[in-house]
Amino acid sequence: MTRSTDCLDGEKLASRLFATRAVSQALAAPLSSEDQCAQATEDASPTKWHLAHTTWFFERFLLEPHQPGYTCFDARFNYCFNSYYETLGARQPRAKRGLLTRPSAHEVRAWRAHVDQALHRLFSAPLADQPEIARLLEIGIQHEQQHQELLMTDILALFAPNPLRPAWREASILPAGKEIALTWSGFAGGMAQMGHAGEGFAFDNETPRHDVLLTPFHLANRLVTNAEWRAFMEDGGYDAPTLWLADGWARAVAEGWHAPLYWERQEGVWLHMTLHGLQLVDPDAPVCHISYYEADAFARWVGKRLPREAEWEHAVTHAPQMENAPPAGLFYPRAARGEGGLEQMFGAVWQWTQSPYTPYPGYRAAPGAIGEYNGKFMVSQQVLRGSSCVTPEGHSRITYRNFFYPWQRWQFTGLRLAEDAR
Amino acid sequence: MTRSTDCLDGEKLASRLFATRAVSQALAAPLSSEDQCAQATEDASPTKWHLAHTTWFFERFLLEPHQPGYTCFDARFNYCFNSYYETLGARQPRAKRGLLTRPSAHEVRAWRAHVDQALHRLFSAPLADQPEIARLLEIGIQHEQQHQELLMTDILALFAPNPLRPAWREASILPAGKEIALTWSGFAGGMAQMGHAGEGFAFDNETPRHDVLLTPFHLANRLVTNAEWRAFMEDGGYDAPTLWLADGWARAVAEGWHAPLYWERQEGVWLHMTLHGLQLVDPDAPVCHISYYEADAFARWVGKRLPREAEWEHAVTHAPQMENAPPAGLFYPRAARGEGGLEQMFGAVWQWTQSPYTPYPGYRAAPGAIGEYNGKFMVSQQVLRGSSCVTPEGHSRITYRNFFYPWQRWQFTGLRLAEDAR
Amino acid sequence: MTRSTDCLDGEKLASRLFATRAVSQALAAPLSSEDQCAQATEDASPTKWHLAHTTWFFERFLLEPHQPGYTCFDARFNYCFNSYYETLGARQPRAKRGLLTRPSAHEVRAWRAHVDQALHRLFSAPLADQPEIARLLEIGIQHEQQHQELLMTDILALFAPNPLRPAWREASILPAGKEIALTWSGFAGGMAQMGHAGEGFAFDNETPRHDVLLTPFHLANRLVTNAEWRAFMEDGGYDAPTLWLADGWARAVAEGWHAPLYWERQEGVWLHMTLHGLQLVDPDAPVCHISYYEADAFARWVGKRLPREAEWEHAVTHAPQMENAPPAGLFYPRAARGEGGLEQMFGAVWQWTQSPYTPYPGYRAAPGAIGEYNGKFMVSQQVLRGSSCVTPEGHSRITYRNFFYPWQRWQFTGLRLAEDAR
Amino acid sequence: MTRSTDCLDGEKLASRLFATRAVSQALAAPLSSEDQCAQATEDASPTKWHLAHTTWFFERFLLEPHQPGYTCFDARFNYCFNSYYETLGARQPRAKRGLLTRPSAHEVRAWRAHVDQALHRLFSAPLADQPEIARLLEIGIQHEQQHQELLMTDILALFAPNPLRPAWREASILPAGKEIALTWSGFAGGMAQMGHAGEGFAFDNETPRHDVLLTPFHLANRLVTNAEWRAFMEDGGYDAPTLWLADGWARAVAEGWHAPLYWERQEGVWLHMTLHGLQLVDPDAPVCHISYYEADAFARWVGKRLPREAEWEHAVTHAPQMENAPPAGLFYPRAARGEGGLEQMFGAVWQWTQSPYTPYPGYRAAPGAIGEYNGKFMVSQQVLRGSSCVTPEGHSRITYRNFFYPWQRWQFTGLRLAEDAR
Repeated sequence: MTRSTDCLDGEKLASRLFATRAVSQALAAPLSSEDQCAQATEDASPTKWHLAHTTWFFERFLLEPHQPGYTCFDARFNYCFNSYYETLGARQPRAKRGLLTRPSAHEVRAWRAHVDQALHRLFSAPLADQPEIARLLEIGIQHEQQHQELLMTDILALFAPNPLRPAWREASILPAGKEIALTWSGFAGGMAQMGHAGEGFAFDNETPRHDVLLTPFHLANRLVTNAEWRAFMEDGGYDAPTLWLADGWARAVAEGWHAPLYWERQEGVWLHMTLHGLQLVDPDAPVCHISYYEADAFARWVGKRLPREAEWEHAVTHAPQMENAPPAGLFYPRAARGEGGLEQMFGAVWQWTQSPYTPYPGYRAAPGAIGEYNGKFMVSQQVLRGSSCVTPEGHSRITYRNFFYPWQRWQFTGLRLAEDAR
Repeated sequence: MTRSTDCLDGEKLASRLFATRAVSQALAAPLSSEDQCAQATEDASPTKWHLAHTTWFFERFLLEPHQPGYTCFDARFNYCFNSYYETLGARQPRAKRGLLTRPSAHEVRAWRAHVDQALHRLFSAPLADQPEIARLLEIGIQHEQQHQELLMTDILALFAPNPLRPAWREASILPAGKEIALTWSGFAGGMAQMGHAGEGFAFDNETPRHDVLLTPFHLANRLVTNAEWRAFMEDGGYDAPTLWLADGWARAVAEGWHAPLYWERQEGVWLHMTLHGLQLVDPDAPVCHISYYEADAFARWVGKRLPREAEWEHAVTHAPQMENAPPAGLFYPRAARGEGGLEQMFGAVWQWTQSPYTPYPGYRAAPGAIGEYNGKFMVSQQVLRGSSCVTPEGHSRITYRNFFYPWQRWQFTGLRLAEDAR
Repeated sequence: MTRSTDCLDGEKLASRLFATRAVSQALAAPLSSEDQCAQATEDASPTKWHLAHTTWFFERFLLEPHQPGYTCFDARFNYCFNSYYETLGARQPRAKRGLLTRPSAHEVRAWRAHVDQALHRLFSAPLADQPEIARLLEIGIQHEQQHQELLMTDILALFAPNPLRPAWREASILPAGKEIALTWSGFAGGMAQMGHAGEGFAFDNETPRHDVLLTPFHLANRLVTNAEWRAFMEDGGYDAPTLWLADGWARAVAEGWHAPLYWERQEGVWLHMTLHGLQLVDPDAPVCHISYYEADAFARWVGKRLPREAEWEHAVTHAPQMENAPPAGLFYPRAARGEGGLEQMFGAVWQWTQSPYTPYPGYRAAPGAIGEYNGKFMVSQQVLRGSSCVTPEGHSRITYRNFFYPWQRWQFTGLRLAEDAR
Repeated sequence: MTRSTDCLDGEKLASRLFATRAVSQALAAPLSSEDQCAQATEDASPTKWHLAHTTWFFERFLLEPHQPGYTCFDARFNYCFNSYYETLGARQPRAKRGLLTRPSAHEVRAWRAHVDQALHRLFSAPLADQPEIARLLEIGIQHEQQHQELLMTDILALFAPNPLRPAWREASILPAGKEIALTWSGFAGGMAQMGHAGEGFAFDNETPRHDVLLTPFHLANRLVTNAEWRAFMEDGGYDAPTLWLADGWARAVAEGWHAPLYWERQEGVWLHMTLHGLQLVDPDAPVCHISYYEADAFARWVGKRLPREAEWEHAVTHAPQMENAPPAGLFYPRAARGEGGLEQMFGAVWQWTQSPYTPYPGYRAAPGAIGEYNGKFMVSQQVLRGSSCVTPEGHSRITYRNFFYPWQRWQFTGLRLAEDAR
């Protein structure tokens, strides 16, 4: 987890900007143009679409309004690559993004170059004189990083059911560590503060910083592992309706859930599809690709509960931690190491909380189209905290609020247990 | 709003029990057996089903386990009238409750009599000696009261689209009052308490009583009126996506929402179906039959917000109030009177809050099948507070938490505005 | 099978008309008003709706245009009880006929009496002077008879899944006969004629009578029995895709077909729901409640085929027959008797043919709304020939063409085998 | 229209085989690998899938059973590219063919080369000695030709809704001809023969040749034109339910049909997407991309009818004709020329007939998996006759029976009128 740097320092910002733009292309590099065009599910988007939409974002929010004389690359791309901004006009239906074989991957790359070139010109004047541009650049970087994670989750969703079992990139999963006992860190509760304040970047949904009241609680020092999840499965967790929320049980029955997404059993052995192909399920690695419903049922099965987001944020602020991000180039959540402190708060899997995604007291969405970024999703979703093994470096934050619907499983999502202190 | 009485006083409890049982039948009395059998929508249930299910509840939770020698009326009714208790076996699919033409309305009445008779026998011994029975009787009463309200909402859902425009009972809606200016009550915020504690009855989801932290806020002294809602409509509120949550906008477009449920325009005049037939929309009465999405969009349009449930509960506890329940036999939300205090907190329409339905800190569901009553619904729904013009007398409570999905409109649901105190 | 009588003889026609009207009410008599109101499936209609729609038919097609001074009973009923006549205005959505708890069963009976009274007045002048009225009366009778059969199939669809297993009327199914060997009648082929001509009544889809060319064929002397169907089941017929039409296989898999509709196995014994309640499957009775897909798969399994409608009509015209209608009051298809001739051509189950429902050469639909009766359904359906144990007396005809979609199973449908003569 | 050549002449067959294989690749050549991978709709398939499936067909039906020592290219491709042969194992769900980004277009081309090489080896021995191989080669050629047409229809389905309006290949549509008056050819009726017999190739569904009885009829000398279709539209044809089959009307309302598929109006002018991009609708060209429902409604509007397939086949056999195929490289149906004879029987658009797709008397499906080719689709579809501007040269036949569901519009489908001779 890295703090966002000062966005008025032009050199630093430019360096981060173009590094980010380069990372997107590097992530796409192992993929054919076919791979980049296909849309795995309605929730997922094609790689090419991610590469194009992030470019569109800079063009529509920054270059067109703020760079005099900027020439739009192709006016028709606004329809193709607007995601959900009602303020910015009609758009390709979400479920049909995979049908956009034109513009081609090649044309999208040319567009990226065109926009990058225009972005370079922005830095000719000092950013300190143009704070709105600096602010929009920073949002553009953060936005592109979010899509880098989505790009990876969406490619896995495309490859997982492919009968040829492709890997985004061949790699050996790290050797399994060891079994680490579950221990608890205690927190006294009382008045605390949460949310973002100060200089660094944060999305509007992390603000304002505000007081919260915590009851005393314990937080597990590591994530729930695959071995623990198998115990839940073997104890009939997927067949016991009383462990489940009613909506969750209905979904599990309708879709035939009996294991995390991407798991399959071959000759008595559990395997799962990963970005590095079909791999043995490592018993000590954190369980991944589970819905909120499953996380909640598991917690009930153990007699614990999921943490609230305020608890998670408080704990990560006040307890020693240990990072567990995978080594560069490996995109698989790493097992805990058991060397003390709260492990795996970042860099392994997103952690479902029992907190619905709601506005903080005093929250105000930004004016204009950018105000559609976060606020309009504040219903029916659950907050996830931390970050995952596919979150780009520099994109994690203590106050970061990720959010998905309780039935969604295709993100790198897992859980950490909590309990009330008695 | 009435406090629940001491449930260990057998005479009082018996009187409330049989009065409640009688109310259910009185509500069904104006309805033919055909009306009682049909199921208006998947969300709704038939009147007969409500009459039967509440009887089943007493039979399964109270008589069978606690009355030695009790003879089950018909073992097949368990399948027919179990609602959602996984612990209690398979059941008629929810969407097909309206196909249960057998058992007949007549047989269900006979069953009710059979169960009432058995319930009478329970009071031969003092309840103080059998607190579990007293507790279950109380839950059974409360449960039946909830279904009385549902019975009325479901009959309206059945009659509203009927081309003959039937009324549950013919009646003149009260003459419209007068336009009452919107004023605000201020609350200082800080530490407060919410939730149920003490002797009276409450559902498990109202417990435990716990501390909450409030930021200073204002609460509107009355509900939003039909006149105000028409201003929203006329200003294009239903055509302005930026006022809406994304899920809400998608739903409004898919279902063609342009006014509250049951409204229709005839020759330039707005009418709406009510339990008393097709009536003019009273401009000063509170708007009713709107979804959370609509309530939220309206609040954004005015530049205000919906209250949080803790704010609502705090306000009702600390401010003078005025009741606005309709006169007996009239089931239509009454206009505010403007005589001071917080009006219409109870007895008009349920008030959407911005609070998702989640467990209170320290919440524990009851053990056994009764534990399925509330806890398993704690996801994706929004809390509503207060009570409505179809809530049975004696069923309102300051700590009461009603909950529905954000898209549901067929309950008597409206809104009250709030704002942050600056 | 009875020939339709001369429709210009007023006395005979009046007698048939009021007898038919009385039969409808007799069929409804064992049913409660709840039973009469519910709609079992989207394909089915409520009993009350059948009673009302047949009345509407006389009112709209006969009384309003042809009886001066006729007073419409209730103008709103046109919306409620128009089935599919686009020419006659908007109507209650088909899937929501069961929600019409109003008008009540009682009001519908009053409407029937009102219309019957008006119909009586028609006979004051001789019908020979008013042939259009005679023609419409005859159509109205035939139409009501069709709905009598639907009423019975729809009640069975309502009762079959009811957990109380109700019977339309309690009765003992006739004792099973005996096993009758399958034999074949041969027909030489060549030029033949089919279709209706002459005086008696026929629907427009039975005309014009026209030449057809037949190849030599054999027709089975009796229907396929339940015992034979069980052999198909036990040989894996429902699990062998190569026996099935592609559409049929997809449907069978999607809906989990493994036996005829209404069959269920209890402790190793096959039972099925009938109009007389849950009964043992009689091995010698004809199989019933199967789709065209199943009939076709069965025929392929035996190495035979379904007859064409021209073959069926030719055979019934040229071979001796034996009727097998059940005794009065019993509505269950009767086993063959094996006494020679083509058995069970009428009165047992409708027989799927391999002929799609298309217009005969030279077919012309009637002008006006009545032209919507048959012609607009001439696509994607299969013709069935004969009649069933729930077809009203006097409604069978050698040239009669019944038609349903190939996936529909809720009618009394079975099959008779055919083969090419080599 | 060309007769199929003698399939026992090895040289000729080899030449046709490899020419056919080359045509498939030539059709795909203007498409990027992205274009080739995407699946436009559930009815359509990706270009790559067509290239692969036709190759799979040769591998599974010919090389594996008949070439000793043949090495399967990749055993996993059987799952990927089996279309609907239940006999040959599980397969990629039809709706998800577009998700097969692996194997790549490149790998599929390599597979094609591998299979072509193996096919070459078959010709080392004279085909006269191996008639089964000759027969399968011929089927393989015909099968690949069918998929060439589908490839083109499916690419148009992909490009038509693309906001960039791509063309398969840029080209000028031929200049519109002239308005040609509709005239009629008369046919006397009586006994005739239809179906395939003799030496040349035909699919099993064209056999056996058999007698049919025809009533005297007239057939229009040319297809219905776009100008005539516009007259239908302008006369309210799409808003007049009484012109339509009931199923057709329901579909037209549900999907909002108001013009043929791919038509759009810009500033008062009708354009349509074609394989050569967005083009003006040529008033004299035949109307194309209409469903059976539309064709039938149009015919009713004019007071005519669609031809039966026996009539069509009889007419084309007995009347002088004039071919109207477009010049090489142009894939747009050509206007009639008005120089006498039956025009446009082949090479313009497929012609809906009023004949459902049923087996001919005496029809037998081939044994084994190849028997799944045609027979299992013989329900609920309508026969189309002739061929279209995208039918490969050499694939047309007088006895050819094409078939689609009555609601399908994405093929090159139009209509020719017929009427009874009075």
